[in-house]
Amino acid sequence: MHHSYELFLETSDDTDIIDISDQVAGHVRQSGVTSGLAVVFTPGSTAAVTTIEFESGAVEDLRQAIARVAPEKLVYAHDRRWGDGNGYSHVRSALLGPSITVPIVDGQLSTGTWQQIVVLDFDNRPRRRRVLIHVHGEAG
Amino acid sequence: MHHSYELFLETSDDTDIIDISDQVAGHVRQSGVTSGLAVVFTPGSTAAVTTIEFESGAVEDLRQAIARVAPEKLVYAHDRRWGDGNGYSHVRSALLGPSITVPIVDGQLSTGTWQQIVVLDFDNRPRRRRVLIHVHGEAG
Amino acid sequence: MHHSYELFLETSDDTDIIDISDQVAGHVRQSGVTSGLAVVFTPGSTAAVTTIEFESGAVEDLRQAIARVAPEKLVYAHDRRWGDGNGYSHVRSALLGPSITVPIVDGQLSTGTWQQIVVLDFDNRPRRRRVLIHVHGEAG
Repeated sequence: MHHSYELFLETSDDTDIIDISDQVAGHVRQSGVTSGLAVVFTPGSTAAVTTIEFESGAVEDLRQAIARVAPEKLVYAHDRRWGDGNGYSHVRSALLGPSITVPIVDGQLSTGTWQQIVVLDFDNRPRRRRVLIHVHGEAG
Repeated sequence: MHHSYELFLETSDDTDIIDISDQVAGHVRQSGVTSGLAVVFTPGSTAAVTTIEFESGAVEDLRQAIARVAPEKLVYAHDRRWGDGNGYSHVRSALLGPSITVPIVDGQLSTGTWQQIVVLDFDNRPRRRRVLIHVHGEAG
Repeated sequence: MHHSYELFLETSDDTDIIDISDQVAGHVRQSGVTSGLAVVFTPGSTAAVTTIEFESGAVEDLRQAIARVAPEKLVYAHDRRWGDGNGYSHVRSALLGPSITVPIVDGQLSTGTWQQIVVLDFDNRPRRRRVLIHVHGEAG
């Protein structure tokens, strides 16, 4: 069984990092899948998905580490060509990657207690961000 | 239904970044899968896969960001042991990761309009690079 | 067919990087799956999974590259709030990501000869680390 769900997030313009664990868990329950996989995927080239302990300290630390690798203030070739000002957003998104895959065991996501699923929106303007949650497996 | 496809790429020696979106989309169509998952995987320890807006500016920006994290000119323990000169390639590949998973919805890859699937070849010599495209799901 | 396996690793406190390729391959054989996918997932917010040529040089090079992005000695907001001292561990884990997906072709993992599957434990204390191996596909 394959189930596709969409999630829409209203994001801010400064590396917004949003916990979507509850929504993913809700769709896993809704699917009835007891053994399988949940794939979280971000369409678009200025967002990404990963897991982290979702507390404001760790989230800010992640934001700063990403900014060390792809600072907002560098000169980016993308911006010279297109004037978007979001060259850093594209680089951050490509480095973090668009997908994670989480096993479903006994009807539950197998993420740890302190491990949340987060979408990172790197764009330099607020977005209505679409996220895909694909649930696949066997019903119990 | 599980379908495995191979792709062969002739790459260059300087962090070649190659758009394979059309090939992946073609294999999704060929599979007949309408709801499922496409996994793109790079066998080998000096390549990786991610998504990016495939325009020369953003691609060059990504190349430079990766080079900041794992510069070619550092001294690498791998090179001291093996003399390959591609220690940086191994590090870059491990950081970016070998796989992405893209949901298939209504027979289409769910990547965004400006989001292409790219293989990154970090090796320090031209390669004939094999890439796996695994398509799995239900036919319509 | 969906098969879930668990692996337990005794890890050390200094960015332990552990080759689990044999265990993953063993579970693929055990599953009987000949065409499908193997997902390796690390529950918890201070570990990650990727692939690398598992020789001590490349492994040390990767350790140092990760330390350049998220040095242990920075001041982390996570540590200021919680006093865990493992703020760097959370950041490293989120950057590398919790999952990889490897196609299974003809009953074999499609990793390359010099490409091993590794779990990275970034925590600042030894852990008994649980890893999930999810195998899914068709039996031959």
